[in-house]
Amino acid sequence: MDLQSINYVIDTFFTIFTMTLIIFMVPGFAMLEAGLVRTKNVSTVLMVNTMIYAVASLAFLLIGYHLAFGDFGSETMSKWAAFLFQMAFVGKVINIMSGGVSERAKIIPLAVFTVIIGALIYPTVVNWSWGNDMLEGTILDITMYDLAGSTVIHSTGGWALLAAILVIGARKGRYPKEGGIRVIPASNIPLVTLGAFLLWIGWFGFNGGSVGTISSKEAANTVALTILNTNTAGLSGAIIVAILMYLMYKKFDITMILNGALGGLVAITAGPDLYNIYTPILIGAIGGVLVVFGVSFFDKLRLDDPVGALSVHLLNGIWGTIAVGIFANNGEDITLLGQIKGVIIVAIFVFVTSYIILYIINKVIPLRANKDEEMEGLDVDECGLEAYPEFKRAF
Amino acid sequence: MDLQSINYVIDTFFTIFTMTLIIFMVPGFAMLEAGLVRTKNVSTVLMVNTMIYAVASLAFLLIGYHLAFGDFGSETMSKWAAFLFQMAFVGKVINIMSGGVSERAKIIPLAVFTVIIGALIYPTVVNWSWGNDMLEGTILDITMYDLAGSTVIHSTGGWALLAAILVIGARKGRYPKEGGIRVIPASNIPLVTLGAFLLWIGWFGFNGGSVGTISSKEAANTVALTILNTNTAGLSGAIIVAILMYLMYKKFDITMILNGALGGLVAITAGPDLYNIYTPILIGAIGGVLVVFGVSFFDKLRLDDPVGALSVHLLNGIWGTIAVGIFANNGEDITLLGQIKGVIIVAIFVFVTSYIILYIINKVIPLRANKDEEMEGLDVDECGLEAYPEFKRAF
Amino acid sequence: MDLQSINYVIDTFFTIFTMTLIIFMVPGFAMLEAGLVRTKNVSTVLMVNTMIYAVASLAFLLIGYHLAFGDFGSETMSKWAAFLFQMAFVGKVINIMSGGVSERAKIIPLAVFTVIIGALIYPTVVNWSWGNDMLEGTILDITMYDLAGSTVIHSTGGWALLAAILVIGARKGRYPKEGGIRVIPASNIPLVTLGAFLLWIGWFGFNGGSVGTISSKEAANTVALTILNTNTAGLSGAIIVAILMYLMYKKFDITMILNGALGGLVAITAGPDLYNIYTPILIGAIGGVLVVFGVSFFDKLRLDDPVGALSVHLLNGIWGTIAVGIFANNGEDITLLGQIKGVIIVAIFVFVTSYIILYIINKVIPLRANKDEEMEGLDVDECGLEAYPEFKRAF
Repeated sequence: MDLQSINYVIDTFFTIFTMTLIIFMVPGFAMLEAGLVRTKNVSTVLMVNTMIYAVASLAFLLIGYHLAFGDFGSETMSKWAAFLFQMAFVGKVINIMSGGVSERAKIIPLAVFTVIIGALIYPTVVNWSWGNDMLEGTILDITMYDLAGSTVIHSTGGWALLAAILVIGARKGRYPKEGGIRVIPASNIPLVTLGAFLLWIGWFGFNGGSVGTISSKEAANTVALTILNTNTAGLSGAIIVAILMYLMYKKFDITMILNGALGGLVAITAGPDLYNIYTPILIGAIGGVLVVFGVSFFDKLRLDDPVGALSVHLLNGIWGTIAVGIFANNGEDITLLGQIKGVIIVAIFVFVTSYIILYIINKVIPLRANKDEEMEGLDVDECGLEAYPEFKRAF
Repeated sequence: MDLQSINYVIDTFFTIFTMTLIIFMVPGFAMLEAGLVRTKNVSTVLMVNTMIYAVASLAFLLIGYHLAFGDFGSETMSKWAAFLFQMAFVGKVINIMSGGVSERAKIIPLAVFTVIIGALIYPTVVNWSWGNDMLEGTILDITMYDLAGSTVIHSTGGWALLAAILVIGARKGRYPKEGGIRVIPASNIPLVTLGAFLLWIGWFGFNGGSVGTISSKEAANTVALTILNTNTAGLSGAIIVAILMYLMYKKFDITMILNGALGGLVAITAGPDLYNIYTPILIGAIGGVLVVFGVSFFDKLRLDDPVGALSVHLLNGIWGTIAVGIFANNGEDITLLGQIKGVIIVAIFVFVTSYIILYIINKVIPLRANKDEEMEGLDVDECGLEAYPEFKRAF
Repeated sequence: MDLQSINYVIDTFFTIFTMTLIIFMVPGFAMLEAGLVRTKNVSTVLMVNTMIYAVASLAFLLIGYHLAFGDFGSETMSKWAAFLFQMAFVGKVINIMSGGVSERAKIIPLAVFTVIIGALIYPTVVNWSWGNDMLEGTILDITMYDLAGSTVIHSTGGWALLAAILVIGARKGRYPKEGGIRVIPASNIPLVTLGAFLLWIGWFGFNGGSVGTISSKEAANTVALTILNTNTAGLSGAIIVAILMYLMYKKFDITMILNGALGGLVAITAGPDLYNIYTPILIGAIGGVLVVFGVSFFDKLRLDDPVGALSVHLLNGIWGTIAVGIFANNGEDITLLGQIKGVIIVAIFVFVTSYIILYIINKVIPLRANKDEEMEGLDVDECGLEAYPEFKRAF
């Protein structure tokens, strides 16, 4: 092998490796959500996750990638590896959205929306942020630094979810007329834990691979620092939420603590390559705090989100992008204003388009299961099978 | 490091990486099958999967590899990496077989058959197809192109399964005397989903690693294309089955849809490096259709296969191998007839030897649990423990 | 890329890959232990595993690594990759300990002990064995060969566990006054199996990555041999225990068989790079035998260890380290006496410090749940939620 080819080979291999880690997030999201919802809706949640991976990836192959980046191509590695890496991202945006409307949203309208996000909305955001940049030279040009997608992935998914919750509404009985909030416990804590750690591991690929190359000493250092900082923010998010849970309730609520870790991971995602190794402790801790107070906040607004995705992904996607403007070391092109501008433009675009499209879909194919289906659980009507048919229910 | 060593190092590392992905298929098959069978047989299924990995791998180390390839050796990478990669395959063949006789086959005779497949039958097929080729120069010489084993792995496992089902028979009550088919629902859908996605990820290693090298630009491109095409066939298989399920039943039967994805993955396995990026959509879609109609077809023949392995692995193994003859780009040595000839020779060899050996084993150590054991579930007699002892059964 | 940088890049990438495999051991331990304990303690076990990863890793980042190795630094790869690899180890030591005190130890005192092990005890052992070696030149200098930690990780965790069991005592009802041992069955066998295989896969990274480099032909060969031998010892441990189980009980107790595999994996960990490819069959088999008889032995001593960690990690950690002295090929610096001396020094240091610290912690914050909490299950008091709230209990 000649010297010139070595970088190409190593970066192709590295990208295949990190892409594979990201694909572990498919069972990661599926297990997390299957554990968080009630048993009567578990098969539907798993089906939605499967559908999203299949439909979004294919829509991105056929349409979305070209909208974001033009032709298939990369000079520094195999164009197919470059494509696979980008394709691995697209489903995540929709996973964020679908998780938050679990237990009442139906599969077919979600599939329609998946096509539209995967082929049009998400690729447009990528075009503006990482791709061909059709806004370049205009007043709306996005200059924000967002290495692996605190905004491009996580708050994009979060804004789509907010639109979806507004269109679909809360689960029956979640906010009773007599006031208060009905707690609906997670049905399977081992699955929640497994899912959270598969996501965590996937994040090493997500953020590490977003560096785009490992084939020089500097690049190798940046990749390793990126993964270290990613992990540290997750650790910190988990620890701060554990402390808060103990101070508030004297209980270690593991679902909240794992969401705290995920919140820290979302928050670091915009700039894990830019910080020294201690800053992520602070960024992740704030991420964890945002999860705890976000969950209460959205419940007060009666925005029903069974998996906490608005707090984990929307709030922390915003926080992480702004944090780059506050803490980033290499300041040259990064400004707090530029970061905020990016957040706002993406917010408006994604929320407005998602809301309009979901509103239209809902008129044609109702997004929401009817009351009987919801009471019985969506699994029977949507999937024709139960998730745990041999296990006797306690209630 | 000198330039000459770099290829060696990179290909060793790449092979270790892809081998590791394949090993994720061990828990992948275990979880898929544990989720598809009834709770009373789950521990036995898990034990069989564990036994297969242990026994088949050791038999391959001591005997099978040498029968297929001669001495340990490889000049282009570490011979131990080359061995590990081949060893990762062998258990899969037997997993395919064992899954389909779940809920009535006993552990010890399966272990005996595992030794024979792992040490003799599978290595012979590998010898003819990928290895030292003892048939070279004879009229039976196999010239089929089968990159990662649509025939060598999947239809080999499928023919062994067909022989096993003929020897063992259907589960009690599956085909009642009064006619019809008794539906036996999967007991744990999250495990099915987890298992299917671990298999899917393992397939990236299976097919990508089968390219054998990544250490040149051309090789890196081929590996990336192989993984892309592998994934696309899985996506397509899932989507077509989802559409069929909705058209036929208005229900998204997730177990069938995941089997559709696996069927697409089996079908692409013979030639993922040979197609353009759109052909796998067609190959995978046909793979999915074969799963749906295969399941009904084998039930009509009263061939009881609790996990759908005949449809997923046997039909699609055949289809994938023939598809290379129809769609492959680099036509030089590949002919439709050559592909079909390979399918037939392997079919006859594996089915006949498996049938004879299983027939003999069954005379000495009955393969099938007795009626009482089967009614009670195999776990108590075979493993001395239940899979979920604290969970009250619904029936 | 210049030739000189290539080694740096490849070793950084390789270390990130193997570190990632080790992180799969986090869900691996979590699922294994969640499956082995009773449903009423599952959330607590998962929380303890999550806490350990977060707290131990952060303690190691802030304090422990520096105690073991001094400043961050590595000339042969990215210092952050080198750190991440070492950080991935630390939690494992504490997982070994925490698993064995499941179902009665409380989260907060375990967290305090986690800080102390992660920041002080384990890093001291690493300093003596792999790091800056503060004992060099003294009579206590440790010269033992321990590639990936049969002693440094596994028997360290095992001695800490023995101290913890002595301080905390057995689960209520485990050893009834009227004599005998009450069998407490594992609650979820699929989780046990999943966890065991995630650990197995993680071991490839643990041992393979401990070679420290893959960037020469010799290094690549050593890495591949190390992974092959690691795997073989696991296979052998599983098979021998399966045979023993059948001879003793006519039942294939899958939890014991998987522990046999893990015992083989622990036993090979001291020297997987030193053996020919057949020796691990013997080392793993003895490892499996030690698990079977160890479990009975510790029960006779009324040392209650719900997951079998004393047998898997302590006995086999010792056995594996001694085995290097018996079987290792490159004898130059390795002596049986040197191996035994290492085992003993680590044993005394870890057991004594752990016992004293746990004794003090226990005086300040009782380690043990009170009787009512233990009867009810720790989940309600510790986590405020049940692991499977919708599933009706059989008893």
